[in-house]
Amino acid sequence: MTFNILFRSFQTLTYVGTYKKIKNRPLRLYCAAVLGTGIVAYNQYQSKAEMKEIMQLKNYMANPITPVEQLEQNKDDMKTQMELLIMRIQAEFCRALEKEEDKAWEDEKSVEDYDFDNDVYMTWPEAKFTVDRWTRKEGGGGITCVLQDGRVFEKAGVNISVVSGKLPPAAIQQMRSRGKNLQNAELPFFAAGVSAVIHPRNPMVPTIHFNYRYFEVQDKDGVQWWFGGGTDLTPYYLNEDDALHFHLTLKHACDDHDSSYYARFKKWCDDYFYIPHRGERRGVGGIFFDDLDTPNQQAAFAFVTSCAEAVIPSYVPLVKKHKDDAYGYHERQWQLLRRGRYVEFNLIYDRGTKFGLHTPEARYESILMSLPLNAKWEYMHQVQPNSEEEKLLKILKEPKDWLQIEDKKRSNA
Amino acid sequence: MTFNILFRSFQTLTYVGTYKKIKNRPLRLYCAAVLGTGIVAYNQYQSKAEMKEIMQLKNYMANPITPVEQLEQNKDDMKTQMELLIMRIQAEFCRALEKEEDKAWEDEKSVEDYDFDNDVYMTWPEAKFTVDRWTRKEGGGGITCVLQDGRVFEKAGVNISVVSGKLPPAAIQQMRSRGKNLQNAELPFFAAGVSAVIHPRNPMVPTIHFNYRYFEVQDKDGVQWWFGGGTDLTPYYLNEDDALHFHLTLKHACDDHDSSYYARFKKWCDDYFYIPHRGERRGVGGIFFDDLDTPNQQAAFAFVTSCAEAVIPSYVPLVKKHKDDAYGYHERQWQLLRRGRYVEFNLIYDRGTKFGLHTPEARYESILMSLPLNAKWEYMHQVQPNSEEEKLLKILKEPKDWLQIEDKKRSNA
Repeated sequence: MTFNILFRSFQTLTYVGTYKKIKNRPLRLYCAAVLGTGIVAYNQYQSKAEMKEIMQLKNYMANPITPVEQLEQNKDDMKTQMELLIMRIQAEFCRALEKEEDKAWEDEKSVEDYDFDNDVYMTWPEAKFTVDRWTRKEGGGGITCVLQDGRVFEKAGVNISVVSGKLPPAAIQQMRSRGKNLQNAELPFFAAGVSAVIHPRNPMVPTIHFNYRYFEVQDKDGVQWWFGGGTDLTPYYLNEDDALHFHLTLKHACDDHDSSYYARFKKWCDDYFYIPHRGERRGVGGIFFDDLDTPNQQAAFAFVTSCAEAVIPSYVPLVKKHKDDAYGYHERQWQLLRRGRYVEFNLIYDRGTKFGLHTPEARYESILMSLPLNAKWEYMHQVQPNSEEEKLLKILKEPKDWLQIEDKKRSNA
Repeated sequence: MTFNILFRSFQTLTYVGTYKKIKNRPLRLYCAAVLGTGIVAYNQYQSKAEMKEIMQLKNYMANPITPVEQLEQNKDDMKTQMELLIMRIQAEFCRALEKEEDKAWEDEKSVEDYDFDNDVYMTWPEAKFTVDRWTRKEGGGGITCVLQDGRVFEKAGVNISVVSGKLPPAAIQQMRSRGKNLQNAELPFFAAGVSAVIHPRNPMVPTIHFNYRYFEVQDKDGVQWWFGGGTDLTPYYLNEDDALHFHLTLKHACDDHDSSYYARFKKWCDDYFYIPHRGERRGVGGIFFDDLDTPNQQAAFAFVTSCAEAVIPSYVPLVKKHKDDAYGYHERQWQLLRRGRYVEFNLIYDRGTKFGLHTPEARYESILMSLPLNAKWEYMHQVQPNSEEEKLLKILKEPKDWLQIEDKKRSNA
């Protein structure tokens, strides 16, 4: 295991080293990367050994939805474990994104931005997540964090929700991709999840979406539980190195748990994020799964934890790498058109959005936070042959086996 | 009848006269309005007397979908009558809109825009509708006319389609608002309709949508037919005079046929264009109806003809009145946010869009032509109390009885 982690850290480091920008920077940055990788390796090792969420109230974006005493009394309950996990993932991700915003402004800071009383540069108010903690009449609530109109992120939404109540079985069935036997009556349920969509301003930085969730439904035979989730990337311009890095990071997160997961969940992702009327996928995929209730609750939770922890290393390096790339009117227009496709998928096909909007008393602002700040629809838009835009479209029409899993299988056979 | 038409024309004229811009212009414009009104009156009188569409090939935007010989052989068939009607309506509406674009450029024309060979000013290429005539493998086709990125119209789409083939009853049921007994088998059907969505650039000019359609389904008991349609207005800033003019024009079109139609179809429109998750209507309404198969085919067709002919007088005066109004960044941002709501309605709730996108081999470019060129989604957008934006929202949350039909009923009772 330790060897595995060290080897993987080396792989990541090598990948990071290939970023020209980092390569060309002073040695101290490279050392920082080595150190960072070491920390990741150590954390991975530690979390493998322990794999239990500890409450860290002061780090969260807001107070947990469930009263703290109740969480403390039920430390080992999966409901508690999941709520603490999503609270931590939300906070870590929001802070990692805010850090990118700060850096973008650094070069432009002037004496007027300096707070002499506290001897620090003031941060841009827009470059911080607003935090809305909301509750639901029926039970539970959520914390919606949105950063809008920043320099690096045009719109970034990171939401957690912890809800319970009674749902008709039809609604519960809709939450699952395949049916299970459930009684035909209103059933008590619990759902906790984290979900985020990040739309950067620079068209060279891809959009990321992830969502990890845990469900419990109680019927006459007892409690049924399952996990679902995924992470997927939507570039506006295809950079094969980026796609490779993204898929490799997800594969590492999967491989620790089940060597068949990545290939299965990669295909599921390609199938799910499909826009039939256009014959295109939303992006270059990633992983997607639902109804996961094997091999056991603790192992499934450990898998979901690994996936959720892989979001930052899969994405933030791409933001760093491209956020200052040059682009012009043409690239911005293409990005806006692609955002229109994102809206089409989310409003017409996405099961989560549909389920949310059809649930009475749903908080639509949190559901629709996934929509971009700006989108465009041109009639009969055509890309130029052999252009960068066409290169992307080809991949959206025919998903690629980024890590050559199938090729390797064939050559081994 | 003649008296009715003259009275109505006078009403319209008085209304037109209240437009300050026209009022302040030279007498010849007022005379032109009188003459125009006279022509409308004469045409109304003539079409009442005859009420039969005559083929006018050279006026249409393209050749009809059905071969001309076939149309000529079946002049009295409702399928022919409807196809000719929608061809005419499409051409008249496109030309009326193009005329508004031309005028907008007039002040800026320079010697470079002058075509000395033909002694005319050249028209702007963007300010013309592009015409796409398309056919469907299964049978039929359509003509899609789009004007994009004009000075007055940001995106204007006017589409006709004439399609036939076999449809599963589930699909046919979805086309109707209430079910009728149909066999459980694939049934031959015919559908012809015109549909348009006009998104102007100036936020003071409202968006208009209309759609008029005719269906035939053949089952073992014979042919079932019905008409559907409607016209509705979506302003970004509420101008009560405009809403009144719009509803009055629609009411006139209805009243000639059935005095109960306007009130019934106005309510249906308010109910249909509802966005449940926001608790808002899409706009200030208009009329909407479906499954109309009374009192007889010819009378229903005459009603639909009147409605379709009312589109230009209901809308073009509003374009003329407001297309040069002053506006700024704030108003444009609000318009873009409202366009986001338009997208939400069309992609999530609109039956026509859903039906279209779920039909195999559908031409999605024609279906999605209704989406605006640009739209925006801001998290938790709030309007200022007592602002013009709030004034609009109030009406969207509680539709108004513009022509005080219910008030009058109560005072008569």
